Amino acid sequence: MSIQEYCYDGSRRFCIREVSTDAEEYREMKRSLVAETRSNLEKAALLQEEMYASGEEGLVIVIQARDAAGKDSLIKKVFSALNPAALEVHSFKAPSDTELRHDYLWRIHASLPERGKIGILNRSHYEDVLVVRVHRLDAHYRIPSRCRTEDFFERRYRQLRDFETYLYENGYRMIKLFLNVSREVQKERFLERIERNEKHWKLSSSDMKERADWDAYDEAYEACINGTATPEAPWYVLPADNKWFTRYLVSRILLETMEAMHPAYPDLDPEEEARIPQVMEELESDP
Amino acid sequence: MSIQEYCYDGSRRFCIREVSTDAEEYREMKRSLVAETRSNLEKAALLQEEMYASGEEGLVIVIQARDAAGKDSLIKKVFSALNPAALEVHSFKAPSDTELRHDYLWRIHASLPERGKIGILNRSHYEDVLVVRVHRLDAHYRIPSRCRTEDFFERRYRQLRDFETYLYENGYRMIKLFLNVSREVQKERFLERIERNEKHWKLSSSDMKERADWDAYDEAYEACINGTATPEAPWYVLPADNKWFTRYLVSRILLETMEAMHPAYPDLDPEEEARIPQVMEELESDP
Repeated sequence: MSIQEYCYDGSRRFCIREVSTDAEEYREMKRSLVAETRSNLEKAALLQEEMYASGEEGLVIVIQARDAAGKDSLIKKVFSALNPAALEVHSFKAPSDTELRHDYLWRIHASLPERGKIGILNRSHYEDVLVVRVHRLDAHYRIPSRCRTEDFFERRYRQLRDFETYLYENGYRMIKLFLNVSREVQKERFLERIERNEKHWKLSSSDMKERADWDAYDEAYEACINGTATPEAPWYVLPADNKWFTRYLVSRILLETMEAMHPAYPDLDPEEEARIPQVMEELESDP
Repeated sequence: MSIQEYCYDGSRRFCIREVSTDAEEYREMKRSLVAETRSNLEKAALLQEEMYASGEEGLVIVIQARDAAGKDSLIKKVFSALNPAALEVHSFKAPSDTELRHDYLWRIHASLPERGKIGILNRSHYEDVLVVRVHRLDAHYRIPSRCRTEDFFERRYRQLRDFETYLYENGYRMIKLFLNVSREVQKERFLERIERNEKHWKLSSSDMKERADWDAYDEAYEACINGTATPEAPWYVLPADNKWFTRYLVSRILLETMEAMHPAYPDLDPEEEARIPQVMEELESDP
C-alpha cells in the first residue's frame, strides 16, 4: 500500500463518507506491519539526528481528531522513538483570555520549533475552523464588525494556506494528520474511560456534547481539509479505529517525509577543520 | 494638505527620487502646525481610551528609516502623548541566534499587541527585505536549498502582504512609516553625535558603513515599498529632515487612522447593568 492513498494535497476532494475508519483489510498483516512500524521509527530517529545537526529544516506535525481517536497515545507510542532534545510537543486547549485578545495564529506561531527540530501540535490552529465553526464561537469574539464576513471560514482557510506556504518557503515542512475514528469505536473508548481506573481521569461530559454534533463535525472536517490541503502542507486522513494501524501509517508518513528532506550532517567549519592537526597533537601529548 | 500625498497603498508607484525630504514649502506654517500636532495628539489620546475599553481593534505602527532619521525621537516626542498602559514599543535589533533559527516573522508576530492596544515596531520585519537585501545576509542563513530562489525578495514581499492582510482580517490596522532623511541632514546629525555629549553614545561606525550604501538602500526601499503597499497596510513616506514636520504628519496619520476605526466604549454587561439599583442602594446605605 502507498501512503498516497491517505494523502490530500489539494489535487482531489476529500469526502468523509467514502473513507474507511478501520484496518479490516490489513488485519492479516498486523504482525509484519507492527514490526515495520518499529523499523520505520528507528530509521526516522537516525534521520532526526542529521536533521538536528544540520539545522536547515524544521518539521511541524499537526494532529487533529475527535475525542478518543488516539491523539495522546499516538504521541506517546510513536514519537517516543525520537530524541526528545530535538522534539517539542505543544498541546493546545481552549484559548485563554490573553490568547483570545490576539489573532488566532499568535499562540501557534510562537510555539513553532526552531529549524532542525520537530514540533508536534496536539490540536492546533485547526481548532479555529473546527470547534469554532461547529459552535460558531466567533460570535463571542471581540473583533470589529468589518471582520464578521459571510465568508468568515473561507477566509480562514485562505489565511491558513498562506501561513503554511510561508512556513514551507522559510524552511519548514508540515504534515497534518486527521485521526478518523468511527462513532462506534468512540463509544467503546468512552465506556473504557468509565470502567478503567487509569483512563477514568480523561472522562469529560463535554466530550458527550461534542459527540452529539457528529454530523456537524463531519462537515467541518470535510470543508477544512478540502480548504487547506496543499502540496506544501498536505493532510493525511488516517483510519483510527485500530491503533496499531494508525501508528504504522504515521511511522511511514514520518519516515517518507524525513527522507524527502534529505538531511545531512553539516561540514565542519573550515577554521575548526584547519585546527584538527593541532588538536590531535594536544590530545596525544595529554597524559 | 492631505496625508494622502504621502500615502502609498499600491495604487501608484513610489519613486524615491521624486519625493521631498524637507519641509521648505511649509516653513511659514511651522508655528500653527506645531500647535495642531499637539491638538491632534490630544484627540488621539481620547480615541485611544475608547479603543482600549472596546478591545476590538489593535493598531500596529511600523517605523523604518535610515540611521539618524529620527525614529527614537519620534517615538519619544509623539507617542508619549498616549496612555502607556495601552501602548507597547518593540525595538528590533539584529536577530539573535535563536531568532535566526526560526522563520523571520516569528519574533515579530510574538511581539504584536493585544487587540485594543497600540504596538510600535521600531524597526521590524522590513529589515528582512532591507538590510538583508542590501548585504545579502540571506546567504548566511541555515535554510534548505529549495528556499534559496531567484525571486527570494519578491516572495518575501508576497509573504509580508499575506501576513498583513491576515492581521487586517483579524482585527488589526497597520500603518507603515518610512522616515525619509536626506544624505546632507544625516551627515549633520552624525556630526552632532560626535559633538554633543548626550548624543555621543549613539555613534556607531557601522552607521558610516550603511551610509556608504546609500544608493543600494534607495533601491531596496523603493522595491520594498512598491512590493508591500496595500490598502490594508499602507506605507507613508515622510520627509524627515525637519523633525517638527515629520511629527506633525505622524500626528495626522495617527489621528485619521484612529478616527477611521470608530472606537466606542462598550456597553456594560447586561447582568452588571441589572445590578445597578442594588449597587446604588448599597452605596447609599454605606456610612
